[in-house]
Amino acid sequence: MRQLKLSRAFTLIESGPVVLVTTHDGKKNNMMTISWTMVLDFTPLFAITTGEWNYSFAALRKKRECVIAIPTVDMLDEVVGIGTCSGAATDKFARFKLTPVQGKVVRAPLIKECLANIECKVIEIVRKHNIVVLEGVAAYMDSLRKEKRTVHAVGDGTFIVDGRKLDRRKMMATKIPEGI
Amino acid sequence: MRQLKLSRAFTLIESGPVVLVTTHDGKKNNMMTISWTMVLDFTPLFAITTGEWNYSFAALRKKRECVIAIPTVDMLDEVVGIGTCSGAATDKFARFKLTPVQGKVVRAPLIKECLANIECKVIEIVRKHNIVVLEGVAAYMDSLRKEKRTVHAVGDGTFIVDGRKLDRRKMMATKIPEGI
Repeated sequence: MRQLKLSRAFTLIESGPVVLVTTHDGKKNNMMTISWTMVLDFTPLFAITTGEWNYSFAALRKKRECVIAIPTVDMLDEVVGIGTCSGAATDKFARFKLTPVQGKVVRAPLIKECLANIECKVIEIVRKHNIVVLEGVAAYMDSLRKEKRTVHAVGDGTFIVDGRKLDRRKMMATKIPEGI
Repeated sequence: MRQLKLSRAFTLIESGPVVLVTTHDGKKNNMMTISWTMVLDFTPLFAITTGEWNYSFAALRKKRECVIAIPTVDMLDEVVGIGTCSGAATDKFARFKLTPVQGKVVRAPLIKECLANIECKVIEIVRKHNIVVLEGVAAYMDSLRKEKRTVHAVGDGTFIVDGRKLDRRKMMATKIPEGI
């Protein structure tokens, strides 16, 4: 995985792919499937919706860091499996045959098999709305990977795979931050 | 446009499509293009990232309501156009030939040409993070419409169109709220 410019990290989240969020609670790695995510700024800041109902939340609150990993369509069954069992009872890395890789800044692991990974620090937890505000501190992209299509959860058990790409760079020139 | 069960409204946002957000400031309609959105709950609650840099923000803060409209791929040039001019200087409904339709609850207009619309009330503005928390109060879907593919902004001026749909309803049965 090659390092990706931090200024481009928001482009991994903006299109709304299902992501995996990894944590390390001081003893063990864990991960959860999240599709409730949002970009907050180009710096880059992100928000995710999570709370006590996710076992990972305790580690997120305690260690104040995580990794957002971006899986692709060939990993959909793993992604759904990870989202429907609990780290309380399962070593998800072992069960779903995914490889934890040490990042540069945080202890939570990158996922080797994913298209991209963003190391994140927790900036704030807005408890009232179950919003966790994250700051990306390092990002990586496996650009040699052939399958690059991400998946988008509809929320009813169906998923939409990335289709065609359309280019509106010229029309949007005034709105795109420099260096993107 | 037929009314859509409110319990399904989150499925319009979860996959991360670019949306149009309409407002009415007491005098005139306006709309903006937003791709920084997130589901917060099934009730349904949503978050969007916006602030002073959007002309619509003043109306959103003053009237505390809006409509989230979901455009499709055939509307991409309008969507980009709406996102790259300001309501301060432009009547965007006239300029982009879109039809405002009165909803049932809020004064901000539905957009007739869109695939779906969600009437929303502003629940809270988390100024520190530029997060606006919205509650959907009525939702509509134009199910007779042929083009149903939404678009997802990458953030660099390119867009991803909805591709294939994959069904994992059985695997996800334990995680899907009833009535979805």
